[in-house]
Amino acid sequence: MYIHETTIRLHDTDAAGVIFFAQQLTLAHNAFEHFLDSVGLGLGHLLEHADYRIPIVHAESDYRAPVRVGDRLKIHVTLERSGNTSFTLAYRFVNESGTETGRVRTVQVAVNRSTWTKRELPAELRAALDKLAETGARSSL
Amino acid sequence: MYIHETTIRLHDTDAAGVIFFAQQLTLAHNAFEHFLDSVGLGLGHLLEHADYRIPIVHAESDYRAPVRVGDRLKIHVTLERSGNTSFTLAYRFVNESGTETGRVRTVQVAVNRSTWTKRELPAELRAALDKLAETGARSSL
Amino acid sequence: MYIHETTIRLHDTDAAGVIFFAQQLTLAHNAFEHFLDSVGLGLGHLLEHADYRIPIVHAESDYRAPVRVGDRLKIHVTLERSGNTSFTLAYRFVNESGTETGRVRTVQVAVNRSTWTKRELPAELRAALDKLAETGARSSL
Amino acid sequence: MYIHETTIRLHDTDAAGVIFFAQQLTLAHNAFEHFLDSVGLGLGHLLEHADYRIPIVHAESDYRAPVRVGDRLKIHVTLERSGNTSFTLAYRFVNESGTETGRVRTVQVAVNRSTWTKRELPAELRAALDKLAETGARSSL
Repeated sequence: MYIHETTIRLHDTDAAGVIFFAQQLTLAHNAFEHFLDSVGLGLGHLLEHADYRIPIVHAESDYRAPVRVGDRLKIHVTLERSGNTSFTLAYRFVNESGTETGRVRTVQVAVNRSTWTKRELPAELRAALDKLAETGARSSL
Repeated sequence: MYIHETTIRLHDTDAAGVIFFAQQLTLAHNAFEHFLDSVGLGLGHLLEHADYRIPIVHAESDYRAPVRVGDRLKIHVTLERSGNTSFTLAYRFVNESGTETGRVRTVQVAVNRSTWTKRELPAELRAALDKLAETGARSSL
Repeated sequence: MYIHETTIRLHDTDAAGVIFFAQQLTLAHNAFEHFLDSVGLGLGHLLEHADYRIPIVHAESDYRAPVRVGDRLKIHVTLERSGNTSFTLAYRFVNESGTETGRVRTVQVAVNRSTWTKRELPAELRAALDKLAETGARSSL
Repeated sequence: MYIHETTIRLHDTDAAGVIFFAQQLTLAHNAFEHFLDSVGLGLGHLLEHADYRIPIVHAESDYRAPVRVGDRLKIHVTLERSGNTSFTLAYRFVNESGTETGRVRTVQVAVNRSTWTKRELPAELRAALDKLAETGARSSL
């Protein structure tokens, strides 16, 4: 598990006064990028040098409580499934009162960089996901 | 059914060269707002004057083909389900070659503006959804 | 001159109830991309095939009246200056009451795609800017 | 002075491979919100309870070096001017090599919450800006 803490900013919200729904998915991906940084597999390095990409092919997002500007959220990232060519991450958003405000799930596949055809998860990514699956929480706090 | 046509812009994409995944959900909501405009129930009016809100409580998004800057997409909006207090919209994204590039589904509930407690779908919204369910395509084209 | 018409969407706004300030610059760039499409020099094509890039090196943005969800704005795009290696565009935002709600100015330079070193404005881009400078309004309406 | 450290995320970038220009202004505002949090005047609290707003009426942004996914930037926030009804903040973006990648300047005015008419800077905001002007760097690091 990996825990990333973030604060909701003005640009995350909309005129209804709460977080714009699609922004919860962006925040989930930010947490994933923080995790990749924490295990030394930064997305910037991957985009520039790796011969593969890991696009999201499916995403789900649930909203359980309003989230507003200034709210501090902990995003709990867990590995739900890891297969030959794809992996599923689950994200739970918890506010300072301990209320779960939302959930996100993403399915990502490994594809070859130039052709976008499916391929096996590369070893360096598999190693990173193994660290996510390890007992005990890592954290960006 | 309602069809909204849009062109992918630079800010919709990311350094992987394709649309940022969460942006597909934003584009779906834009199409919904265009539809509301087309039936005279603009979201701006609703936010300022209505005693209800229609937050999204669940969203799903599937990605089937890469979408790039300049791609022209038709977003087909259909009413999948309409209940007492909630409704489900489905969005299909189709590019100029006729390829379906992705899908989005959103579940929205009606809540009271001040308390965010569930309530029945208001009549004006029900009427708008009826127009979406009517046979024959409306369009923003 | 080129006129692009757009409607403010929920995701353009923030919890203060009006457009998020940086979004005005995004809308200006959208208008520029619409203009490029209109003269057959789409940014998607340029990103994929051209040996140059035209990054923004300076931007300014002024805000004169609140802009809200559902507001329809006309964005007037004009060529303010065109030099050897750079060009300046001006954008005026006008709402349905005829009120100017804001202005944007951007300075863009031509650089070589791989090295990001300055170069002369390519002929195809110069031709496009000439069309923008022509008397009489073109429009996306 | 206040220093906020941030890492560029995938959603900050576009298909040209670098940060989308308007996003530099969003990052500047994020830094301002971090600063407000640090002096106990969170924007969330302000939006909900204060009888004033502090909209941006002018913004400028300069770009000096490409910024990519994973780049760690320090944003140096300084108070450039503080008047009766407005204040100007300057932001310098510096990467890990010590290169200045960009600058932002924003002018904000105090307005009454309901009427959006100009008013004097409220005392609590003036006190916050005084802390920003104090000698010595505060930091979110």
